[in-house]
Amino acid sequence: MKEYNPRVVFIGCGNLSTHLSKALMNEGGCSIVQLYSRTVQSAATLSARLGDVPYTNEITELFEADLYICALKDSVIEEVLEKADIIRGKRIVHTAGSVSAEMLSRFTDEYGVFYPLQSFSKNKEVDFKKIPFFIEASSQTFREDLVTLATHISDKSYLLDSEKRKQIHLAAVFVSNFVNHLYAVGEKMMVEAGVPFEALLPLIEEVAEKVHTMSPVLAQTGPAVRRDKNVLSMHEAMLEEHPDWLQLYKQLTQSIQNMK
Amino acid sequence: MKEYNPRVVFIGCGNLSTHLSKALMNEGGCSIVQLYSRTVQSAATLSARLGDVPYTNEITELFEADLYICALKDSVIEEVLEKADIIRGKRIVHTAGSVSAEMLSRFTDEYGVFYPLQSFSKNKEVDFKKIPFFIEASSQTFREDLVTLATHISDKSYLLDSEKRKQIHLAAVFVSNFVNHLYAVGEKMMVEAGVPFEALLPLIEEVAEKVHTMSPVLAQTGPAVRRDKNVLSMHEAMLEEHPDWLQLYKQLTQSIQNMK
Repeated sequence: MKEYNPRVVFIGCGNLSTHLSKALMNEGGCSIVQLYSRTVQSAATLSARLGDVPYTNEITELFEADLYICALKDSVIEEVLEKADIIRGKRIVHTAGSVSAEMLSRFTDEYGVFYPLQSFSKNKEVDFKKIPFFIEASSQTFREDLVTLATHISDKSYLLDSEKRKQIHLAAVFVSNFVNHLYAVGEKMMVEAGVPFEALLPLIEEVAEKVHTMSPVLAQTGPAVRRDKNVLSMHEAMLEEHPDWLQLYKQLTQSIQNMK
Repeated sequence: MKEYNPRVVFIGCGNLSTHLSKALMNEGGCSIVQLYSRTVQSAATLSARLGDVPYTNEITELFEADLYICALKDSVIEEVLEKADIIRGKRIVHTAGSVSAEMLSRFTDEYGVFYPLQSFSKNKEVDFKKIPFFIEASSQTFREDLVTLATHISDKSYLLDSEKRKQIHLAAVFVSNFVNHLYAVGEKMMVEAGVPFEALLPLIEEVAEKVHTMSPVLAQTGPAVRRDKNVLSMHEAMLEEHPDWLQLYKQLTQSIQNMK
């Protein structure tokens, strides 16, 4: 296999950087040479986790490196990189689903995207092997190097342009943020009935597991797809005091019934 | 522990009966003496799985038993039991989340509910140990016997009245049927982007797993809860050609932002 063992600077020390930096150091063959965060505490914490990597909260004091990985919040990427003179002409990637690769073109000619499709929590271990990476780059060589890097830590990597990456990021919002909100509504309802939320967990697991072997379109069950009018109107009546959930109920039922 | 080892007749041979009858026979200490289904083929198939239990598709030919478990579709329970003369005065339970226990009172004085909070697929093994049962009964003795029965096959059973059972059934619709539909929307979006649905599975697993250790209200992430207006309006623009999904997006975003 082709080798690519860059010296890396991480810009941003959030949950994604916490896990990705460790994987790139341990399995990815990278040296993490520096960490930058706007809040010095995050940088210090991650530095300690990685075995005392140098860190800074001054964007003007970035070290020389082969690859800058920018894992900042979407909305601040531009304003932070603006002040990082050292990155001009260097290789930079961001890790965001919704931000075009092109946004980095004002800073350098060698830009790209290295987007892992997963949600990261600080203190929960991550198995990168199963996490798909979506890669885009401004040149063929850079693209190949990023694929090499992804292949060191994950079994799945895909080349994907910015428009399509935005689409799969939107899909991710539906199956993660929105699904989690339905769990939250379920929790509130259980608590109102005086039953602990944990009673829903086996069902939650089963539904998430089932789509590993069956398309969710075919796995659809329940009163909406059965067009069971009695249950549907009983449920709507039960939701009268929760207008947001009632609207969700109606809209989800309609979308289920319209899906082909 | 108190013993309760009834001779059981199953009325209805769908997915729930398929799994519950096996568990009650193997771990529950019950004898399954007969199976009834409106379609003789379902009854014959389940009979073979259980080792040739007698079966019928004639409701007037039910055997004598200590407990009749009615696991029919909600909408046909009454019309089928109507014709089952032998059940008068016997112990009957149904297994439905949304049907009141009282509905059975016209058939007998000893009625109840034995509701497992799970979604069953015919050919997927089920571990009843983890599945919570919700129990209701018309008398103290019957209630205790049903709890004994549940305890044989599951680690979790709760006493719950019909109104509250309907509420947790509604919660189940949100975390299973509706969650599955969001998976289906996600699948359609991935396919449009030319990426296989399986790339979403690690994320789906992670979100389902996270709520085992953290309340979903606290686990909420994404553009809606961050009130990230740029991403929110970009997503709405991307959904213009899918009016149902656009409405879902808006409604879910609003409900996330209003949740306390």
